[in-house]
Order: sequence, then C-alpha cells, then structure tokens
Amino acid sequence: MGALDINEKRLRERFDAMSAVGATPGGGVSRQTLTEADRQARDLLRRWMEQAGLHVRVDDMGTMYGRLEGRRPGAPAVALGSHLDSVHMGGRFDGALGVLAALEVVESAKDRGLALDHPLEVINFTNEEGSRFAPSMLASGVLAGAFSRDYAYSRTDVDGVTFLEALEAIGYRGREEDRLGPVKAYLELHVEQGPILDRRGIPIGVVEGIQGITWSRVTVRGQANHAGTTPMDARRDGLLAAARMMLAARDVARAAGEQARATTGAVEQVLPNVINAVAGTVRFTVDFRHPDGDELDRMAARFQEEVARIAREEGVAAEVERFWTSPPVRFDAGVVDAVEQAARELGLDTLRMPSGAGHDAGLMARIAPTGMIFVPSRDGKSHCEEEYTQWEHAVQGVRVLARTAYRLAGGAGDAHGA
Amino acid sequence: MGALDINEKRLRERFDAMSAVGATPGGGVSRQTLTEADRQARDLLRRWMEQAGLHVRVDDMGTMYGRLEGRRPGAPAVALGSHLDSVHMGGRFDGALGVLAALEVVESAKDRGLALDHPLEVINFTNEEGSRFAPSMLASGVLAGAFSRDYAYSRTDVDGVTFLEALEAIGYRGREEDRLGPVKAYLELHVEQGPILDRRGIPIGVVEGIQGITWSRVTVRGQANHAGTTPMDARRDGLLAAARMMLAARDVARAAGEQARATTGAVEQVLPNVINAVAGTVRFTVDFRHPDGDELDRMAARFQEEVARIAREEGVAAEVERFWTSPPVRFDAGVVDAVEQAARELGLDTLRMPSGAGHDAGLMARIAPTGMIFVPSRDGKSHCEEEYTQWEHAVQGVRVLARTAYRLAGGAGDAHGA
Repeated sequence: MGALDINEKRLRERFDAMSAVGATPGGGVSRQTLTEADRQARDLLRRWMEQAGLHVRVDDMGTMYGRLEGRRPGAPAVALGSHLDSVHMGGRFDGALGVLAALEVVESAKDRGLALDHPLEVINFTNEEGSRFAPSMLASGVLAGAFSRDYAYSRTDVDGVTFLEALEAIGYRGREEDRLGPVKAYLELHVEQGPILDRRGIPIGVVEGIQGITWSRVTVRGQANHAGTTPMDARRDGLLAAARMMLAARDVARAAGEQARATTGAVEQVLPNVINAVAGTVRFTVDFRHPDGDELDRMAARFQEEVARIAREEGVAAEVERFWTSPPVRFDAGVVDAVEQAARELGLDTLRMPSGAGHDAGLMARIAPTGMIFVPSRDGKSHCEEEYTQWEHAVQGVRVLARTAYRLAGGAGDAHGA
Repeated sequence: MGALDINEKRLRERFDAMSAVGATPGGGVSRQTLTEADRQARDLLRRWMEQAGLHVRVDDMGTMYGRLEGRRPGAPAVALGSHLDSVHMGGRFDGALGVLAALEVVESAKDRGLALDHPLEVINFTNEEGSRFAPSMLASGVLAGAFSRDYAYSRTDVDGVTFLEALEAIGYRGREEDRLGPVKAYLELHVEQGPILDRRGIPIGVVEGIQGITWSRVTVRGQANHAGTTPMDARRDGLLAAARMMLAARDVARAAGEQARATTGAVEQVLPNVINAVAGTVRFTVDFRHPDGDELDRMAARFQEEVARIAREEGVAAEVERFWTSPPVRFDAGVVDAVEQAARELGLDTLRMPSGAGHDAGLMARIAPTGMIFVPSRDGKSHCEEEYTQWEHAVQGVRVLARTAYRLAGGAGDAHGA
C-alpha cells in the first residue's frame, strides 16, 4: 500500500480497546444502547475523535459526529458511520467495525494531509439494534424523518425506562441543531451477518440495497380436545395445522428464488399447551424478505393462499395479519459503483448483493446517496459471541471504505495514487 | 320400568343441586379438589348418604364411602363410584354423574327393599382430575398401592399448599382403617368424553379397559440465526424440524389403526422465539395412546425412527425422552360381560370400547374385578363448560349401572324383574 494507506496498527489497537468495553466471557460484547457500557464506548470514541482533531458534536438523539472540514466552504459532507451499540451477548464486529473504520479513514486523511473538497464525518448512530428500545434504527430513523422525536423519546425498555431518560442518564442528550447537515453521500462498512461471502470466499460485498421485509402473525383456531378420547379423524388440531403452515412458508420462499427468505421464528401462543390435550388456538409469526417489493408481495399472497388451503383441509379457522412492512431499499447507483470500483482498484474480488438485515444505511438512503460495504462473517454468525470476521478481511473493508470516501469527497482519487 | 326402577326425579334434583356447587357462568363447574367448592359438594353428598341411611365414612385420603349392608355377613362389597372434583371450568357430568348414579342405585335398592347378598358402597374418590394436585387419580392410586400415602400427602398445588394441608383445611382427613374393604367388583359410570358413541348414535359404551399412554418429550437442537441474512439452504431450523416431527407423530397414529392416538399438545420451548430469528432449540411433547401395550411400544419406536430421519434431513440434533408410560388396563371379563348383558336386557344398543381417558376404575382394576359404563358426550366435548350428555342417556347409564350392580351383588337379578 502507498503513502495514503490507513494506519492498520492504530485501527487494531482501537478495535481491541473497544472490544473490551462490555466484553463477555465468550469473546463477545454486551453493550446495549444507552447503558453504562454504551456510555464507556461513547466516551472512548469521543476521546479518539478529539485526539484526531475532529470537531465533535452530539445531536438530540445522542448520535455522535466527528467532522473534518474540506477545502470547499459549505460543501456537503461525505458521512461514514455505523453504531457502537450491540445486542445482549452480541459480537465485537457488528457496528463497531464500521464506526472505527470511519474514524480511521477520516483520521488517516488528516494525518496524510489529503486535500479533499468535501468534509468527512464520522457517525455513531444511537440504538441501531433496537434490542433495548424497539424499534431498531431509532436515531437514523428520526434523522431521516421516519419517526418523530417524541415517538423515539417515549420508547421504553423492559424496566419502563424511556429512551429520553436513558439518554439523559448517560449524559448524551445533545442538540437538534447538531444533527447531520447536508450530505453528499453516506457510506457504511459492516459485517455481512450472513454466510454468503464466507461460503464463496469473496472478501468484499458491494451492497446494492436492503431486502424488503414483511411481518405477519398467523392465528389458527382449532378445537382443544382430550388427547385420549378424541379420534384422530375427529380432531381440529391447531398446532398441526400451524406446523403445516410453517412448512408452507418455507416452500413459498424456496419457490421464490435464492434471495427470498421465510422465517417462522416465534410461537406466541399455544392453548391450552398441555401434554394431554389437542391444541386449539395457536399463534405464530412469519418474516418474509426479498430485495424486490413486488416479489415480496407475491410471497405474502401465496402464503395467504396456502394458509387458507391448509385451514380448510385441517378443519380449522386461520387468519393472517400482515402487520408491518419495510419496503426494499435500493442504494444509489453512483455510490454502489464507486464502492465496486474502489474494491477492484485494490485488487479485491467483489459480489453485488442485497443486505438481509436492516442497517442505518437503509434509513440514510432516504436523505442521501448511500452505499454499504460488507466483509465476510465466519459461518454467517452474528448477534452472538461467536461472531467473527478475519482481521485481514476487516482491513480490506476499511481500505475499500477509505478509497470510496476519498473519491467521493473529491480531489483524493488521484492523490491516493491508485 | 318395573317396581325396582331407580328414582329418576330424585336423581335429577340431586344432579341439578350438585351442578350448582361451583357453577360457572357458561354452565360448567369449577370444583377443583379440596377447595371450598369441593367441600360443599362433599357436604351435600354426605347429607344425602346419611338421609338415605347409609353408613358414611371418610378415609385417610379423603375418599368418601356410603355403605348399605347385604344379607351375607362379611361378604365383599360391590363398589360403585367416581369423583366430585372437576378441572377448572369443567363440565357438570364428568365424575359427578357417576357418584350420584352410585348413590341413586344404592338408595333405590334400600327403598325397594332389595334382598342383596353383598354390601353396596358408594364412593367419591378424592382428586381424580389431578388439575390442582398432580398426578391425577391420587386417592384411588394410594388405595390400589400405586402411590404411597406420603407421596400423595406431599404433592403441592401452584401456591405451594400440600395435599395434606388442603385435606385438613376442608375437614376431610379421615382414617386409614376406613378405607375400602374387600371388594367383589367395582363399577363406574362415566361420560365418554369422546365423540364415538355420539357419532354412532349408541347410548351405552361397554368399556373393556383403558388405553395405554406413553409420554415423550422431544428436544430439537438447530441453529438460531438471522432471518434476513441466512439463506434458506444454510439453515438448521429447529422449529421447522419440530413441525415435521409433530406431523410424523400423527402419521404414526394414523398408520396404527383407529384406536391409536398421537397428540403433540405442548410446545415447551422455542429459542430465541423472536420474529426475526431462525429458531434454534425447540422442545415439545408427544402423547401416544393405544389399548394394546405392544402396539403402543411399536408406535413409540416408529416415531423415534421418524424423528431421527427428519433430524438428519434438516441438519439438526434431536432427542426423544420417553419419560412416562401408563400400561393399558384390561377390565375383568366377567364384569364387562355383566355390563353388556344388563344393557341388552334393558333393550339398549351397546358398543365395546376402550377408554381413552384415565379413570379411578383403571387403578381399582389392580385390586378388584372392574368394569365401566360410558354414556355419550355431545360432540365428544369434555373438560369444558360445553360438556353435555342428554339426560335420557344419563338415566339409561344409571339403569345399566343399577342392573349390573344388583346382579353382581346377588339375589336381585331376578328380583329386579327384568
């Protein structure tokens, strides 16, 4: 790598220091949003950003920014970010890699005296995970206008603490006027959290967008009955009907191609749920995903038909309530191309792919040209202590982020000496 | 009916009076064992037995007896019984019909001056249902030697109250020496709790025994994973594997003939049980029943094979723990024949059948020649407020009980003037 490369050693030291905040015995982190561990992580980031000479500010949702000005006064920023919060017993890479990469990219630009037209901003979004305060991506959602701030402030955790109370408790309630200003592009480096890059041995995923998601709740009403006295052909078994519907959801996804997903993750109710009674009412959830919105709707419709058919055959009533949909997001073609080109210039194999998970980038795409870079997750594991990305891959991702950011910020594409 | 018929009016009045004890708004009863409602029901029965001139006693398990002596000193008794306790929100007929029928049969014998060689005894067994203190049939179990009294006394309800404490609290702890003495035969009239008689339009079920039951718990260990990032072919979905296993249990029962039953009633665990994660570990229960013990074992073995096959196909681990088995009970051929003959003499159609549910008669069969009479349950419903038996059918059952009891008690078969 040339003179304008990132400082890999510094990146590694910071990654290890950040991994120690909220560290779990099995090698993961528990750093749920607005907890003491999150405060420590924020304090660390703030100190590093200040040491790097960035202008640090915090907005009214607690989102942190570190800004390096460009040469052109008033030019929109190239923003690079992710999140430092984690799920309970989560992995070290999910989110933190993207924030530390952003800092490294901006600090390296400063260290090397890169002459960029546009400002660069490091962002640490509050509550990406949503595991303490649902829904997820709350701060980027407020920034993008998807949620009102009042709504966000009033969210409560399991103990009844509101988001606002928790934000004030850790001292990270900032000002609305310190929110992100005009943006030329938003870039996010993240671990894939799926097995595709790992399986194919490809180091860089060029993310084209985020899969659409639609959530349904299926309520099956059979007839609770005695396990011994009710002949098999006299039963209207809610649980067996539900079992067939769950398998039908998988069949629907399989028929919709390799980018389709169907997950029946939660059994919310089985009544009476005793060993010696036929189940009557059963409620379970279905999560369908597809990068194409029309195909997502078709999957939901086919599932609805399958539920109706199975209900008839099993003699039960069934109702599908499609209660939430997140439409697919398509990232900006120019930014996606820039990511791909940067990776190629670095000699790295790439795969264009949708993101199966939601990210702050999905919200940012509503207000700025956006792109994402994925690096491989070993065995696709995420949201667990076993989450792991080879360090070599992580660094390659940071380099692609740097090259893309410098190119988009102007004046550095050539300076970078590719 | 002739001079020796039962008193149908008295039976009806008592049935209605008993149905008012613990009555629920929807026409059922909540009379869980050793509660205040159970105490009221017991007090009512005691008064009626005393009014009938029966010798009343209570044993150390709280089981109540009302005895009419026979002509032959020291002859073993013909015992007729069932239970006054109910499940929460249960039906009026389950148990109570059998106890009131027993009383009516014995009181009618006394009223009409039937000259019987053997004593007759009315029995109200404590805690048949097991819905407050598990296991069920606790008092008949102690009587038959299936459980120790210490074990029974130490059972606790959900509030931590022991069986013994509850027994003493309602004033129904009697003496061990007042347990049932020598028995010539035990007879129990009960509602079928299944739909077979109702469907076929047959008023009297001649019960040949009680189905064997075997309970298993299946633990499936898949891999919890992200709903969006995990391709369908990379999943090891514990819930979908479990769904296939549940359906396989039904297939096993269907293949084992019309007397076989398989019920997957309870989903005990789904981890993590969230809408946007593939389920990892799933635990559910299976209840297999068959009147033939060897066939029951074959069903359990076939299910085990199916679980192993499905686990292989789904890439999960699975374990079947067969943790409890109640072997089938065959009632005494002489008593069964006597029931059938009595019904025929009364001009009633009969069906020989196993009982799908457990009954005190199943325990009594260990210590006495035993038989049961079933009357139809509308739509097979039981353990619910909607449980219903046509009064005409209930009375026909009582008449069959009377005729069988008098015949077995000796000297009255002819006196009855059939």
